Amino acid sequence: MLAEVMTVGDELLTGNTVDSNSAFIAKKLTERGYWVRRITTVGDDVEEIKKAINEVLGRRPEVLVISGGLGPTHDDVTMLAVAEALGRRLVLCNECLEKIKAFYERLYREGYIDDPALNEGRRKMAYLPEGAKPLENSEGAAPGAYIEHNGVKIFVLPGMPREMKAMLEREVLPRLGERKFVQLKFLAEITDESKLAPILKEALEHFNVRIHSSPKGFGKYIGVIIFAESEEGAEKAARFLEERGISLERWKL
Amino acid sequence: MLAEVMTVGDELLTGNTVDSNSAFIAKKLTERGYWVRRITTVGDDVEEIKKAINEVLGRRPEVLVISGGLGPTHDDVTMLAVAEALGRRLVLCNECLEKIKAFYERLYREGYIDDPALNEGRRKMAYLPEGAKPLENSEGAAPGAYIEHNGVKIFVLPGMPREMKAMLEREVLPRLGERKFVQLKFLAEITDESKLAPILKEALEHFNVRIHSSPKGFGKYIGVIIFAESEEGAEKAARFLEERGISLERWKL
Repeated sequence: MLAEVMTVGDELLTGNTVDSNSAFIAKKLTERGYWVRRITTVGDDVEEIKKAINEVLGRRPEVLVISGGLGPTHDDVTMLAVAEALGRRLVLCNECLEKIKAFYERLYREGYIDDPALNEGRRKMAYLPEGAKPLENSEGAAPGAYIEHNGVKIFVLPGMPREMKAMLEREVLPRLGERKFVQLKFLAEITDESKLAPILKEALEHFNVRIHSSPKGFGKYIGVIIFAESEEGAEKAARFLEERGISLERWKL
Repeated sequence: MLAEVMTVGDELLTGNTVDSNSAFIAKKLTERGYWVRRITTVGDDVEEIKKAINEVLGRRPEVLVISGGLGPTHDDVTMLAVAEALGRRLVLCNECLEKIKAFYERLYREGYIDDPALNEGRRKMAYLPEGAKPLENSEGAAPGAYIEHNGVKIFVLPGMPREMKAMLEREVLPRLGERKFVQLKFLAEITDESKLAPILKEALEHFNVRIHSSPKGFGKYIGVIIFAESEEGAEKAARFLEERGISLERWKL
């Protein structure tokens, strides 16, 4: 169950914004049992986004989640790039246009904007790749899109974290099945790191888990994260590690 | 002056760690006048890292900065992957080995570790791709590497932020020339976003600057960042925007 994440935005490439979206998306996908193989960040550039999407599709993941570049400004070009990458036209989603209209009318009534009219930029957000299902944006104007293309489930989400998170929870995760993974985190005290690898390998052969390890401090502690379909499953693997001589304590981040 | 950034680590792909390293590196490269075109994040997997490096090299940037996966544990495989991607052998850097030895002896004297001996994992860090210049790690054990390969400057840095930042400042940036870019940030109050694009385009034709814009709030404010070689150059472009009717105020992040 391979997945990939793509974030779009010049502000990420200039380092003006730390990309916390990709970590959020990756965490949720991991909890659902997906293995996120790669995260790609590109700018607000149609050709770059297209190239990156085609490269992802060539790696044939089950799921691709894209975030960013759906807004009303001239540099929000992600939907166009997705459509072109998939060889589809952009078509007007009437239902989306109605919702966008209602959204700006509400902002106008509430005094946030001076003009509720659907100018070019606002209308643009109602165009989705042909065949896409619109994803409802409960927190903002731009709808997302869900497209199945050559066996890859593609989700296109806004970049504003509040909008992205709500859409991911409500519109994306329910389409990815019921399976859930839990993560148990431990600190292992260990004086020789080279002892850990064969024991982890043995645990992976015995249990239906994934295990990540990473050094903390100067080689005395190793962070160990066990992913399993249940807390009991993860705990069984943890007890196995302890039986093999690795002293674990629960690690609260 | 195109650049790319690559970060390596399973903890980034599971969402357990937010990748702030790539933003830091991208910001520093942008300040030096580089255009970061893409950020790629891969796991601690030799084949994946190799594939991603070869893809970057195919895009022929001037600079590639890689961060993460240089430590002593079994899943720190970045140097091996870099060497294999470039068709080079890993060779022992004697000078590095001496520094690693001294580093662990100091940790031992200061009571951080129980054993200062150079076991397999610690020795591994002294191996660099053939032809690489070692980069000094003032904050930790693992040296970085600087490799010129087919016209691409490749820098390989540790993933621990404190180590990465120090190495970037002291060992990488001095090798990237003296040119510096400043960024001035503004908030533009604007009621119709579609008016902004042609004015920005005009400014780009008149001045030696880069301009990024991104919506803040619901389309009433646009964040505008002007990159130029001097503060005066950026201010000239800002005054030009104001003359064209865009009301700007300085924006402190």
